[in-house]
Amino acid sequence: MMNYARHTTIQAVEGLSTQELDFLVEAQSNSIGALLLHFAAVEYAYQLQTFEGRDLTEEELSEWGPALNLGEEGRKHIRGHDLAYYLARMDQVRLRTYQLFQTVGDDWLGKEEQDFWYHKPANYYFMWFHVFEDEINHRGQIRLIRKRIGRMELETK
Amino acid sequence: MMNYARHTTIQAVEGLSTQELDFLVEAQSNSIGALLLHFAAVEYAYQLQTFEGRDLTEEELSEWGPALNLGEEGRKHIRGHDLAYYLARMDQVRLRTYQLFQTVGDDWLGKEEQDFWYHKPANYYFMWFHVFEDEINHRGQIRLIRKRIGRMELETK
Repeated sequence: MMNYARHTTIQAVEGLSTQELDFLVEAQSNSIGALLLHFAAVEYAYQLQTFEGRDLTEEELSEWGPALNLGEEGRKHIRGHDLAYYLARMDQVRLRTYQLFQTVGDDWLGKEEQDFWYHKPANYYFMWFHVFEDEINHRGQIRLIRKRIGRMELETK
Repeated sequence: MMNYARHTTIQAVEGLSTQELDFLVEAQSNSIGALLLHFAAVEYAYQLQTFEGRDLTEEELSEWGPALNLGEEGRKHIRGHDLAYYLARMDQVRLRTYQLFQTVGDDWLGKEEQDFWYHKPANYYFMWFHVFEDEINHRGQIRLIRKRIGRMELETK
């Protein structure tokens, strides 16, 4: 499911230029580029949470903060990159996910529950479901933004 | 995962008025109302596909077609309903999903593969994953549309 979600994400952004990846529908919007880096950042944060039981350090936050938080911080810091840059960052984190998953069995997904959102218990399966559930949510937004860009480009031709 | 997705969908639309549910960001957009009915329609179609091995009949298509196809057809036919209407339609279909799932065991999800998208094999687990994967994708869009409505309402105050 995680890889299928990524497959559809990559389809949704295929061929986008740096300018298109930086495009903001409105002043308060997230760019497609920022959403792509968000996928890598969320996945990295859940690697730490589920395999190391910790949050990001200050140093890690200075690297991933804008992509995790999006909004003003994302608009300011995430721009000017081409598609290959975002895909490489996403691949790099995914590769580490594969390596980490190889250190555990399927039973790891369900064997333990931790205090999670709203102080309700969640196992690692739910946490990793959330990683790609968040990606699918934003992929829907990427598709909308891309359609919008396409119509604007048509209008200015 | 399917119920969690629905929980977040309901959160995303809480308190919306009929006018807000009908709102179109652009002339070619889907309204939030149409997206909600789309969730019920997709789920109904996959009930037929996975439990009856058939597509919708002409009669069923006249009921569900606009919600399945969205776009022009959706904009024309799906409007003027309040939130309770959409939630009831979604509940009604979900209830039938529970009833159908009670007639099979967990093994049913993986025991058979059928020719599916791009002529690749898929089991029922993938098909039902797609049902809520599609909902999560559009929930991301609903959140965007709702933010947009909120900002427009603020501006006109």
